[in-house]
Amino acid sequence: MAQASAEETLNLKQLHELGQQLRVDSVRAAAAAGSGHPTSSMSAADLMAVLFARYLRYDFSAPENKANDHLVFSKGHASPLLYSLYKMAGAIDEAELLTFRELGSRLQGHPTPEIPWVDVATGSLGQGLPISIGIALAGKRLEAADYRVWVLCGDSELAEGSMWEAFEHAGHAGLDNMIAIVDVNRLGQRGPTMHEWDTSSWAARATACGWGVQEIDGHDFEAIDVAYAKALDTDGPAAIFARTKKGSGVAAVEDQPNQHGKPLADPEAAVEELGGVRSHRIEVGAPPEAQPFEIEAAPVERPAYEVGEKVATRAAYGDALAWLGSIDESVVALDGEVGNSTYAERFAAVHPGRFFEMYIAEQQMVAAGVGLQTRGWKPFASSFGAFLSRAYDFIRMAAISDADLKLCGSHVGVSIGPDGPSQMALEDIASLRAVLDSVVLYPSDANQAVALLDAMREHRGISYMRTTREATPVLYEPGESFAIGGSRTVRFGEGDRITLIGAGITLRECLAAADELATKGIASRVIDLYSVKPVDTETILEAAGETEALLTVEDHWAEGGIGETVAGVLAEAASGTPLVRLAVTERPTSGPPEALLAAAGIDAEHIVSAAQRAIQSVGTDG
Amino acid sequence: MAQASAEETLNLKQLHELGQQLRVDSVRAAAAAGSGHPTSSMSAADLMAVLFARYLRYDFSAPENKANDHLVFSKGHASPLLYSLYKMAGAIDEAELLTFRELGSRLQGHPTPEIPWVDVATGSLGQGLPISIGIALAGKRLEAADYRVWVLCGDSELAEGSMWEAFEHAGHAGLDNMIAIVDVNRLGQRGPTMHEWDTSSWAARATACGWGVQEIDGHDFEAIDVAYAKALDTDGPAAIFARTKKGSGVAAVEDQPNQHGKPLADPEAAVEELGGVRSHRIEVGAPPEAQPFEIEAAPVERPAYEVGEKVATRAAYGDALAWLGSIDESVVALDGEVGNSTYAERFAAVHPGRFFEMYIAEQQMVAAGVGLQTRGWKPFASSFGAFLSRAYDFIRMAAISDADLKLCGSHVGVSIGPDGPSQMALEDIASLRAVLDSVVLYPSDANQAVALLDAMREHRGISYMRTTREATPVLYEPGESFAIGGSRTVRFGEGDRITLIGAGITLRECLAAADELATKGIASRVIDLYSVKPVDTETILEAAGETEALLTVEDHWAEGGIGETVAGVLAEAASGTPLVRLAVTERPTSGPPEALLAAAGIDAEHIVSAAQRAIQSVGTDG
Repeated sequence: MAQASAEETLNLKQLHELGQQLRVDSVRAAAAAGSGHPTSSMSAADLMAVLFARYLRYDFSAPENKANDHLVFSKGHASPLLYSLYKMAGAIDEAELLTFRELGSRLQGHPTPEIPWVDVATGSLGQGLPISIGIALAGKRLEAADYRVWVLCGDSELAEGSMWEAFEHAGHAGLDNMIAIVDVNRLGQRGPTMHEWDTSSWAARATACGWGVQEIDGHDFEAIDVAYAKALDTDGPAAIFARTKKGSGVAAVEDQPNQHGKPLADPEAAVEELGGVRSHRIEVGAPPEAQPFEIEAAPVERPAYEVGEKVATRAAYGDALAWLGSIDESVVALDGEVGNSTYAERFAAVHPGRFFEMYIAEQQMVAAGVGLQTRGWKPFASSFGAFLSRAYDFIRMAAISDADLKLCGSHVGVSIGPDGPSQMALEDIASLRAVLDSVVLYPSDANQAVALLDAMREHRGISYMRTTREATPVLYEPGESFAIGGSRTVRFGEGDRITLIGAGITLRECLAAADELATKGIASRVIDLYSVKPVDTETILEAAGETEALLTVEDHWAEGGIGETVAGVLAEAASGTPLVRLAVTERPTSGPPEALLAAAGIDAEHIVSAAQRAIQSVGTDG
Repeated sequence: MAQASAEETLNLKQLHELGQQLRVDSVRAAAAAGSGHPTSSMSAADLMAVLFARYLRYDFSAPENKANDHLVFSKGHASPLLYSLYKMAGAIDEAELLTFRELGSRLQGHPTPEIPWVDVATGSLGQGLPISIGIALAGKRLEAADYRVWVLCGDSELAEGSMWEAFEHAGHAGLDNMIAIVDVNRLGQRGPTMHEWDTSSWAARATACGWGVQEIDGHDFEAIDVAYAKALDTDGPAAIFARTKKGSGVAAVEDQPNQHGKPLADPEAAVEELGGVRSHRIEVGAPPEAQPFEIEAAPVERPAYEVGEKVATRAAYGDALAWLGSIDESVVALDGEVGNSTYAERFAAVHPGRFFEMYIAEQQMVAAGVGLQTRGWKPFASSFGAFLSRAYDFIRMAAISDADLKLCGSHVGVSIGPDGPSQMALEDIASLRAVLDSVVLYPSDANQAVALLDAMREHRGISYMRTTREATPVLYEPGESFAIGGSRTVRFGEGDRITLIGAGITLRECLAAADELATKGIASRVIDLYSVKPVDTETILEAAGETEALLTVEDHWAEGGIGETVAGVLAEAASGTPLVRLAVTERPTSGPPEALLAAAGIDAEHIVSAAQRAIQSVGTDG
């Protein structure tokens, strides 16, 4: 990488002045808020002063400029420092700085993309660095862009394994546009970190991961300057472990215990000790010209399956993703080293340049997706549904980032069979529904999966599709349209007595049960509730009005899944129609898929029995 | 550590025979099942043959013997190898081996503690090693015991950050009873791993974490033997990176791609190539005599708070935990470096020997809890509720392990205020309810929290308590009894028109709303639904029968929380009583707690309005 072009070179005294201003403003912001993390800001003030004065290339008047560097505060609690930097760069004014943490202020306790210069929400430690890997991958792998990704990390968060997933991946991918600056201030929230100021263990590990590593005094401006220059010349990702003092510059708090996450006791004295309020304004370096790039998109036909053919929806995922990649160049795919199970490999086969093998590191996979979407890419990330639970905190934070992230979890439910419960996603609907504004889809056949994946591509936000391991019969014609929030009533008639509601593999069971019920003279309606969130309230209530009972059946725990979704619809509408919920309620084991569906009480036979009981019960009580 | 005492020393030829038997049996088991992971078993066969023949000290006839070594297959998919070892050790017979993956067989696709010699379920990669840290901590920190913890790891799973949390923690804790054996067979599920047979990066990292590290040929019996002996003499945890060949011994699959997770195409030929079926039986070394140990338990009074006093339930957690530690010596506590926020520090202060600082590594924290409970300890693990989402996959797997694990998540909901959404647990009820047989508690005052924590202590299984950051008024007298599965109707009368249901901070809002409604001439019932799972169905249905409408209010997303729980109860009982659900439905920001409750529409004022509308609506429609 080339040397940074700074607008002007500031001398050491001036850099010290900037560092002090950042400390003063961090102290003042926290004092105004009555809360916050000034001491965690003060430790990194000098590091960030040099970055902004000499190295960062960012046009604060045009955050949409694709050539801007990226700056991610992985230690999001140092938000007072970040906002003080914005003031120093002229992006916000003094008055706004002092709205820190007020209701309605965009300067929240931890940074969020409500601020135009913030790419992603941080504040759950150990996420900023892995997300930055995704931002850097976009630059190196997709855009051939010159921007750099600067990440300010804390030392405490180095205990999070996700940080080491990031070190590993960045080294493996040779991301020479990544610079991680670790603010080693020795003190965590409740006491010293494991390694305090001994950076040697982390340095050895980062080196072993293929990073160019430096260990410096984070309050020595010359050392910082040299380290940044050297980082830019590193042939691979660069890490700077900078020993600093928490609360540096104010004796009452400097390197003192019990000073985490609270305003200074005497902010006025602190400001005076720091040399008073300043209003230095610096010109941050301008980004280079953005360069155009081209994406190859091999042509792929829209997949189409014949009705009656047996196709797993996970296979449809792979086929559809390959097609989507051909009609939309912004589609990229990531997989957690199970691409021959999720069938993400079918995308990789035709669009290798846009496929990211993330190995068995689901946190890093989701984080990279979040990073990629900050630059307008549409990431589809897949693994076994069970293993996406590994990345739940990342998905939670992605929602706070208002990220455009598409997830696919395969091998859901007991119907995977012999691999046993560790591989069965049985909590994915519940956990993914409980994500802000999420979409949760569970296609019941391959053609529907294709249509819904196209809908996911067009939908901006967090969406999740669960796919089935087993090949199930194709029910719908190719090209039939299915929308997020919809449902499909696949069987109905005037004399329907009960409504069976399923999705995915249980729709197949519902249809078989309906056939069997018909032989017993019981007409039943069957609804394919493929969109679990948002849910088609109208169709459910119509069925509640027109049949004697509803029965949901799902290959998922009873909590938070299809049954409770339907229960919520009924209860809110004050419908008195009885609801029977069949779901998995006991620990599954290994066995053949059909046997496990039966053992869990969610196969056609159990649906038939439960439906008969429900109708009898209505007849008796009603 | 002392040299292992083996019953007899086997020569190299005999060891080779054992390795071949393990391969043959792995091939046969997978062939019988028609699925499974024989090639991942074959790579580690020689490593395990030497372990069982010379080093392991385990009485298979007495798995409850506390002096037994522990053996954890972190690469749980190598279950055919594990079961073949059981056969070789005489623990199971030939016929049972061939029930692999059958419905009803305890020899499931991945190991679970349904097998008496298995401590914990594995199969989600990257969990066995972190869990083993907990088992080792019990030996070193609590029991002064001599047992060793042997962990067979895969190379693919080294991409999981949780593995490096484990390396870091074991080194920091100086766990010289840990031996990690990494089967570096070069091939993952869909292709080569990042490092293939170059073990240098991992070795450097493990060394930097404080482990004694060896790199060997995993098919060289002498090298294996020397490595184990050296590992036992290591002053700290020991890691052996053993280069192996996946599918070793059978040319058709040895080191071949696309041979993961499937039976061999021609198992009979493979068995022949391996030298045929064998029935060698070995005597595994006996464990030493179990040593007694003593636990100090400083006396602590049961906490009691005065009604009306303002106390945060998180503070009650710390106080109660300290008390529980004094009345129950098996209680241990773990915290994710936020003990001064969760108040786990109050336990640490009086029971330092039973407190485990896990730093900011929530996966390792939960994993260590799972490990500790395998030896009969009762772990309480705490962090911010939001950050427990980091360990969701570990909690999911803990349920498959049938673990006795008590979790506490503090700082839940928007009511935490200025720190902003990254710190707010808003999905914890939903995600924790969707865990098999879990208990989810949300106390509404400090005295109740104390009682419920005692109930959690006595309850065997996975239980979760969410605690509130804010100090709220004490409502209940000290010593009042509250049970898992219960509720408390805190306000009721004959003319109640609506039932308000809350828990935690929203109970306070419900009570204020009830007062306000009373001034408008509307009598309301208020239920404290502190046990969200299991839920008190009877009390809810009674209220549904006796009042015109129910209203739930929760500081949580609308999905999977209190509202849906109540909806499920009503719908299943075919109650036609209308339900209004107030919950958080938009992305929260920073701000004062009261303002955020108002902004989310879950404060007393919004409850009053919603209650009035609900009653009017019943009046109009009904």
